[in-house]
Amino acid sequence: MTGLFVTFEGGEGAGKSSVLKELGHQLKEEGYPVLETREPGGIEIAEKIRHVILEPAHTAMDSRTEALLYAAARRQHLIEKVIPALEQGMVVLCDRFIDSSLAYQGYARGLGMDDVFKINEFAIESCMPEVTFLFDIQPEKGLARIEANKGREQNRLDLEKLDFHEKVYQAYHTLAARYPDRIQVIDASPSIETVKQAAYDKLLPYLPSLKK
Amino acid sequence: MTGLFVTFEGGEGAGKSSVLKELGHQLKEEGYPVLETREPGGIEIAEKIRHVILEPAHTAMDSRTEALLYAAARRQHLIEKVIPALEQGMVVLCDRFIDSSLAYQGYARGLGMDDVFKINEFAIESCMPEVTFLFDIQPEKGLARIEANKGREQNRLDLEKLDFHEKVYQAYHTLAARYPDRIQVIDASPSIETVKQAAYDKLLPYLPSLKK
Repeated sequence: MTGLFVTFEGGEGAGKSSVLKELGHQLKEEGYPVLETREPGGIEIAEKIRHVILEPAHTAMDSRTEALLYAAARRQHLIEKVIPALEQGMVVLCDRFIDSSLAYQGYARGLGMDDVFKINEFAIESCMPEVTFLFDIQPEKGLARIEANKGREQNRLDLEKLDFHEKVYQAYHTLAARYPDRIQVIDASPSIETVKQAAYDKLLPYLPSLKK
Repeated sequence: MTGLFVTFEGGEGAGKSSVLKELGHQLKEEGYPVLETREPGGIEIAEKIRHVILEPAHTAMDSRTEALLYAAARRQHLIEKVIPALEQGMVVLCDRFIDSSLAYQGYARGLGMDDVFKINEFAIESCMPEVTFLFDIQPEKGLARIEANKGREQNRLDLEKLDFHEKVYQAYHTLAARYPDRIQVIDASPSIETVKQAAYDKLLPYLPSLKK
């Protein structure tokens, strides 16, 4: 495949979706063919699977069932959307991918990162991202940023959630240490413009041959 | 868990579903608490997942997506139906389970038995069947039996299918050799009554303590 597969990871309030959009915009302006996506990404089978996961009536859903469904939706989105774009030589910017499952389900929900890796390895085969940006922000700061955007202060429930997000944060840093060649850690505390520029600089060495 | 988990496996026309029904009937008559089931088994989440698999519009479904969805439905059926019955001390007779996925998807569809085992291991954890009956019939005989039941002779398409079913047959025998303690091979060519009796005899050593 001739394209470049880039994934965007990080906890809540890290700003990764905004940075993805800004970076995609800049790359397109510079003449790169870009696909911006996130699972299930309008792929019918993946959307149907996501619908089963999110259905409010499904309160009995086991966390392993859920992890298998996420892996299934990931597979279909990859096969129908990501791989065809890579084959056309596009830069694919994907908002969350395997590392989200490892951090949230594997570590924070306690299923085990190695076990969750196995089912995702089955889903992804050899199509791992070439570059993964980990947007790094302390969980407390990230959550406060979200609340500020909503125009309200943090409350008791937010603080209870904090423990969960601390675990996600820890897991992401474990992954960054495990995959230093793939995962690029970027300080997400400055402005979106600054963070985007940092991501752009790190991406530059991978890009030149992809311009139309 | 105090119950007994028994699974029924075999190619098309092996008669396993009929034997399951007859064996379940006999065990109930003798006073054993019995649950007869097969995935998705009326479990809402598992039924919804199966619906996604079988939807005719989903022609683009990748075989790995499908295998992950089967594993997800398996997990939920196990958690909501099989395990609670085992915890109540029941004899659970389940029509097809992990070995079907290994034989059909892993081997005959070419995904690899070891890879399909990994995602099913994630789904099942330690809840493997204590006893698995493999109803053994040559694929050609099994398919002929099905056609005879439908009142028609084998045609060209049936013979094309034969190659696939030969692979399933081979895979089941590989599994029987790999798990000789769990998988009991039963000759499925005699009458249902005879086959049921053979299964009953093999089950007897596991049963006594389960009677109400």
